[in-house]
Formats: sequence, structure tokens, C-alpha cells
Amino acid sequence: MKSWWVILFSLALGSAQAQQSEKQFIRQLFDSSLVQGQSWPMLEHLCKKIGHRLSGSPQAQQAVLYTRTQMLRLGFDSVWLQPVMVPVWVRGPKEKAYLLVSKRTSGGYIQQQKIPVEVLALGGSIATPPGGLQAQVIEVAGLEALKKMRPEEVQNKIVFLNEAFDPRHISTFESYGHCVANRAWGAKEAGAKGAAGVIVRSMTHRIDAFPHTGAMQYAEGGRKIPAAAISTLHAEQLSKLLKEKNEVELYLEMHCESRPDTISYNVVGQINGSSPQARIIAVGGHLDSWDVGEGAHDDGVGCVHSIEALRLLKANGYKAKNHLRAIMFMNEENGLRGAVEYARLADVNKEDHLAAIESDRGGFSPRAFNVEADSSVIAGLQPWVPLLSPYGINSIQAGASGADVGRLKGKSELLMGFVPDSQRYFDFHHANSDVLEAVNKRELELGSAAIAALLYLIDQR
Amino acid sequence: MKSWWVILFSLALGSAQAQQSEKQFIRQLFDSSLVQGQSWPMLEHLCKKIGHRLSGSPQAQQAVLYTRTQMLRLGFDSVWLQPVMVPVWVRGPKEKAYLLVSKRTSGGYIQQQKIPVEVLALGGSIATPPGGLQAQVIEVAGLEALKKMRPEEVQNKIVFLNEAFDPRHISTFESYGHCVANRAWGAKEAGAKGAAGVIVRSMTHRIDAFPHTGAMQYAEGGRKIPAAAISTLHAEQLSKLLKEKNEVELYLEMHCESRPDTISYNVVGQINGSSPQARIIAVGGHLDSWDVGEGAHDDGVGCVHSIEALRLLKANGYKAKNHLRAIMFMNEENGLRGAVEYARLADVNKEDHLAAIESDRGGFSPRAFNVEADSSVIAGLQPWVPLLSPYGINSIQAGASGADVGRLKGKSELLMGFVPDSQRYFDFHHANSDVLEAVNKRELELGSAAIAALLYLIDQR
Repeated sequence: MKSWWVILFSLALGSAQAQQSEKQFIRQLFDSSLVQGQSWPMLEHLCKKIGHRLSGSPQAQQAVLYTRTQMLRLGFDSVWLQPVMVPVWVRGPKEKAYLLVSKRTSGGYIQQQKIPVEVLALGGSIATPPGGLQAQVIEVAGLEALKKMRPEEVQNKIVFLNEAFDPRHISTFESYGHCVANRAWGAKEAGAKGAAGVIVRSMTHRIDAFPHTGAMQYAEGGRKIPAAAISTLHAEQLSKLLKEKNEVELYLEMHCESRPDTISYNVVGQINGSSPQARIIAVGGHLDSWDVGEGAHDDGVGCVHSIEALRLLKANGYKAKNHLRAIMFMNEENGLRGAVEYARLADVNKEDHLAAIESDRGGFSPRAFNVEADSSVIAGLQPWVPLLSPYGINSIQAGASGADVGRLKGKSELLMGFVPDSQRYFDFHHANSDVLEAVNKRELELGSAAIAALLYLIDQR
Repeated sequence: MKSWWVILFSLALGSAQAQQSEKQFIRQLFDSSLVQGQSWPMLEHLCKKIGHRLSGSPQAQQAVLYTRTQMLRLGFDSVWLQPVMVPVWVRGPKEKAYLLVSKRTSGGYIQQQKIPVEVLALGGSIATPPGGLQAQVIEVAGLEALKKMRPEEVQNKIVFLNEAFDPRHISTFESYGHCVANRAWGAKEAGAKGAAGVIVRSMTHRIDAFPHTGAMQYAEGGRKIPAAAISTLHAEQLSKLLKEKNEVELYLEMHCESRPDTISYNVVGQINGSSPQARIIAVGGHLDSWDVGEGAHDDGVGCVHSIEALRLLKANGYKAKNHLRAIMFMNEENGLRGAVEYARLADVNKEDHLAAIESDRGGFSPRAFNVEADSSVIAGLQPWVPLLSPYGINSIQAGASGADVGRLKGKSELLMGFVPDSQRYFDFHHANSDVLEAVNKRELELGSAAIAALLYLIDQR
């Protein structure tokens, strides 16, 4: 496999003429995306006509139908649905939360203060008991610190996991990677130790009043306690109150519930390749989102990138040798059921993937492509960098592809991930602020063109 | 001069140890900016406590005092003001503008419709006559087309210059460069041909209702007519109405006026270098802004970048060999008087500039540095790229430095410009939307650190 890429690139490098025509066609793809692209109207539809699209919701179903219709309308050769059972979690009425602070005044009196805070139940959490939950808050630096605590320290308390993003990571995904275990496993750990509930500092650098939800999981058969994210602004405020030696209780009311699994779908569209040895070059994003905001950057953008990349190639008259496939994965956020099913069917149907690319890092200015492969394969891809660098893509580097196409590990020759600028991603991620207005039209269009160019370059080899 | 850089870099490249310590110190600068930087509170002060800062305004004067105090407070070795006379142009009460559209109905009747549109007087424009200006609108594709028209075609009409940004340029500054002559010289051309006024499509890719102001100039002794920018949304609407063969008049009311020049100041702060042969390494932005929004990206950011870059070096214990200087230029927007005076004084005082760097392209993620020099000098700077690329700066390239430091051409050995991602810049440029909220804190901090790293690398050579 390694030598295959290396040999092909050595051949390609020899041909200055081929390089020139590649350069010109990539320019044409970018022009086309920036002048008459369809990225923006498609994202606008997903965000404004449909809205957020949690697995199992009516909106997720609308998004299945919309993207299916869209790919048919664009003349893809075939468009099909892959049925998959997905979990159904419903938030119910908006959460209520406030702090009850007992301050000792200079005169020795105790003053009670009630301070509203913004929280969002974490996806998968149970509700609070009828009448809400009220308990003393104990701040814990993070999951590792919690693991070391004795049960009596947290028993019947609400554990407040307040691990902040480390701002020193240049890629914000690294900061997220270091913190997200608090959200995923905080309830499991705190619950096992007898805590009454858990609140987790929102997964963002930004200090504001938007809580950021996301997936959490209980231990199989373990004790379940309500789990919520608190906005960074209120996490800071709460931490300050606790540091000032106040006794702080949190009142929390959440009405969420898990319901029986329901049927949903991956949506797959394909433009057939002309070669008798055609393999599959796939690109995907996930159609589901959290149930707040509009799922714009996460991951309406990835769905739009995928459909638009194929459309751009088709609209510019490109006849691919390989099958070009756009995949709208269902249920990335809270189960990955769509990705698992796609990979299973790829096996069953003996589908041969030359490449699978994921876009699930937002619709910002393109900067790089990640490759999940050993260094010799990545070295073989470097001749593409000068073809992409005029558009701001300066690196083809070792790195994760994505949660969905990652399921094709060992099944796809190449696994790649689109890497846009990461600075703003976690400002919006899983929050009410992840709306169309947070996306810049040109940045989105550059991403679609970058992915189209990558598909083209892979297909040309 | 060429050989000087080339030789030094060859020497430097030989020393792996030096590279390692450079790498570490640059990491430290970025950590420091991201963890405990002062970029954000300084920009917040300029935007929220002071606001927009047109030359000659009370706010511009406040910004002079604030940045002077700030640099003194930060312990710069010397801080001084360079007095300079600046033009004073005052917008007066908000503009009023609406279209009067005469539509022919199917029954042959004429229907009059009044449609409000958003405009902003261009900086330097005269007011409309008392009672406003009302005249028929004629759309012209752009300044070049206008130059070819006969006077009788535009006489007593309002010329509507509707040249849109070409979206194909990847750098939005190229799109701006191709269109800005419409704004700068539209009134001069249209006035000479007898037009009653001119409205120019706002200088942005974005379609929205924010008009974007900016500088314009009349011919010396030429006929003066009122000149305004119209929002892209309303430019599109107006163009559509005209294409549908409607007769459209524009009512325009502007109360702006030019007043006598007044005194203002460049603000210069310096940290003295330790070498007896110390030269000057300067970095600057402009303190003035247009009189709308808060002058956040343009160019509060550049001022903050400059002060913060010096502060970061000082706070991290760096003792520069050369003098490090932060310059707050006054009047970049409508006269460049500060830059001209700075360059004049540099001559008078025989100041020896090793480098002058400008930040006037907004506070977005760092991507490159421009160098105004021939290719051998630029080649000599390439060893810096691997030191900066972990922070997203992938290119040290030929390109413009900036309007202010550009006045030091021939006086400074190196002229450089900070180049952040350009996609969003013209969404906000010279418009009411150029406010603090349009800036991402981390992107701003990365810029300050990138410039600090550049100052350090230049000083090390």
C-alpha cells in the first residue's frame, strides 16, 4: 500500500503538464464554489428551515429527507438510505438552576442569596427527581481528582467538575481532548461515590453564559445521577463563591428522559466512477446535531461540504474514475450508530474504499488535511501541498480523521480529516450559539472547494 | 544588505542549539499571550470605553492619552507624543436616504414607492444642499466605465457605482484593491461630468444592510458633489429595480462637513536596546478609525498587537539588543498625516530603522508575514518559517507592509506586514459592525504573540 502511493507520486511528479492541469482545475473548483456555490443555501436550509437535529427527532428525519432530495435534485447517480436504530433522548422543558449562597456577614448573620445560573442537561442524563434536586456543591478540579476522593467527601453533594480548557494548545481540539472526559464520565464517577448530581464546566475557552451540552454515559448497571453542563461564566462565579468560603447549594431541575430507540437513516449519495476498477472515495459529515442552536458548525457544515464537493466536481464537468460518495452519518453525537452501520454494510457488501474523508471540525478557513496513516504514506501525499497552499491549506499531516469515518479503519486505504482553523469552533460547539450566523459564507465555500480538490487529487492518482 | 541577511542566516542555521532556544522562547511568548495576555482588556478599553476614534475627535484624543498611559504603566523606557495637524471631518446627524420608485403597473398607471436604504457619507464628502438632494439614479458598472461616459449621460443624476467584489480572490484584500478606486475617486469623476451626487456600493463581499464608509477625495479645485456608500443589500435591490426598467430617484440627506485642521499625535513607546549599536525595530498600528462601530479590527487590533508584543517580550524577561518601538499612528484613515510626520522625524533625527512592521489587517488567526523587499532578502528569512508554523504562520512572503510603515520605504532595512486570515475582514471594515464582539480573543492573542516572536527573531539576528 505504501509503495503504491510513493510510486504513483514519483510518476506524477515527473509530469509537469499533469501538475499544470491539476493546478488549473483546482482553481476552477475554487472559483466555482466562491462565485456560484450552493454551500450557503444548503446550510441555510438545514439551520433555518429545519434547525437542530438530535437523533430520533422530527428535525433529524426532515434532514434525512432534505439531503436525500437535494442529492437527487443535483443528479447524483444514486441516493439511498441506510436504516439504523438510534437512541432517543429528549430534553423536555428548559432546565432551571440557581445557586443558594449562604454568606456570613461581618455581623455574624447568615444571608441567603439566590443566583440564577445557565445550565443544559447533558445528553443521556436522567431527570432530577420530581420537585428538583437541591444539594451542597463541592468543586473538584477534574475527573482524575474525583477518582482519588473518598465517597464520604462527595456523598449527597453535587460534584462541580471545573476543569478549564488549557489555552496554551494552539489547536483547540487538543484542549477539548484533555477536558472532555469530565463531561463523558463525570456522572459515572460521581454517581459511584454517592454524589447527588454532577455539573461540568462547559467545554469552551470562551467565558460567556452559553452552556455547552454533549454526550455522557453511565456505567452499565451503575448508579445514575443527573448531569448538566454549566456555562463558563457561571462556573467562574460559582468557583469564586466557593473560594470565598461560602456554603453554596445548587437547585437543579431537569426534565430529560431516554425513550426507546427509533428508526433513522444514514443518507448516502453517489456519483458513479467510469473505471471498471472503480473504488469508493467517500466524504462525510453527520446529519444529527445536539438539540440546541442549529447544528451549524457541528455538523451541518460537514454535510454541506460533502454534498457540495461532489456537486462542484460534477458541475465542472469532472468525470471521476472512482465512485464519489457523500455520506450523511446519523447519530454521531450520542451513539455513533450510523457510522457503525455504514462500516458494517461496507463489510457485508464488500465495498472497497480507496479513501474516506470526514468534515466535522466546523466551517472555518481551510488550513490542513489530517491523515490517519504511517509516515511513508503521508510523505507520499506531500506533492499535493503546493497545489492546495494557494488556498490556505499548508499541511497534509498525521492526525485523526473523525469519529464517523474512523469506523472504517482497516477498511479504507486512506482515512483523512478536513482541518479548518480551530480557534472559534468551541465558542459554538453544542451550544445555543451554533447558528448559521456563526458561519462565514466564504470560509464555508473555501472548505467545500478544498474538499472537492482533495477528492479530485485522490481520484487522479 | 542582501548578503548581510543571507550570511547571518547561514550562520544561524548551523547552530541547532540556537534554533532550539529560539523555539522554546517563541513557545513561551505564545503561552504567555494565551494564558495571561493583555490584548483583550486593552482592546476592550479602546472599543468600549472610548469607541470610534476619527482623527480630530475627542475619542481620538482619549485614545492618545490611553495608549500613552498604558505604555508608561507597562514600564516602557520612554513614551512620547509626536504632534501632527490632522484633518477634521464631522458626519453630523445620521444620513437619511430613500429610493422613490416609479413603477408602471399592468394597467398603465404609475405607482410611486418609497424604499428606505442604508447609506453612510464617505469621509471627506460635502453635505447635501439644505433640504436634501433628490435626483434620478443611473447605475454605472465602475469607475472605468464612468470615465468613458459622456457628461450628458450623468448630468444632474446620482451616479451609482455598483462594482461588486470579485469573490474569486482568495485574499479579500485583492478584491478590495480592485474596487476601492470607486470609493476614492467616484465623486471626482462624476463631479467633473456634472453629476449631482454619487453613491458607491459598499466595499465588502457580504450582502447585508451595513454601509461601509471610507476615504474619498475631490480633485484639487474640482467640482464637489455629495458622496455616500450604500449597503450591499440595498445596492442589489437598487440594481434590480433599475434592471426592471423602473425610473428610480434617490433622496439623500447628509450633514457632514470639513472643519479646520486640528492638533493630534502619534504615540510612540520604546523599550531601549542593550547594544551600543542598537537600531530600531518598530511595530505599529493606527489609533484613528472611522466614526462608526468601534474601530475594533481597523485598527484597534493593530495598536493592541504593537503594545502587547513589546509587553510580552518584556514580561518574559527578554533583553533586546535593539530598541523595540510601538507606534500608534494617527490619521491613517483620512490623510496619513501621522505616518508622514513619523517618517519626517525619523529623517530629521537620523533614526536608524532595522525593521518596521505594520498590523492593519485585523485581529484574525495569523497566517503569514509580508515583506517588502527583493526575493533574495525574502529567501534569507525563510528559516523563520518552521519556527512560526506551529502557530499557523506558514509563509514569509513578498507583499505590502502597510500604509503607515510604508512611508518608511528606503528608511527601514526591512518593511513587513502582519497577515492574518482575511476572509472576515471586509465584513466589518469601516462599518458599524466593526466592534469588539467581531474579534475572537484567542485569534487576537495569537496575533500579538506572532508579532512578538517576529520582533524577537529580528532582534536575534
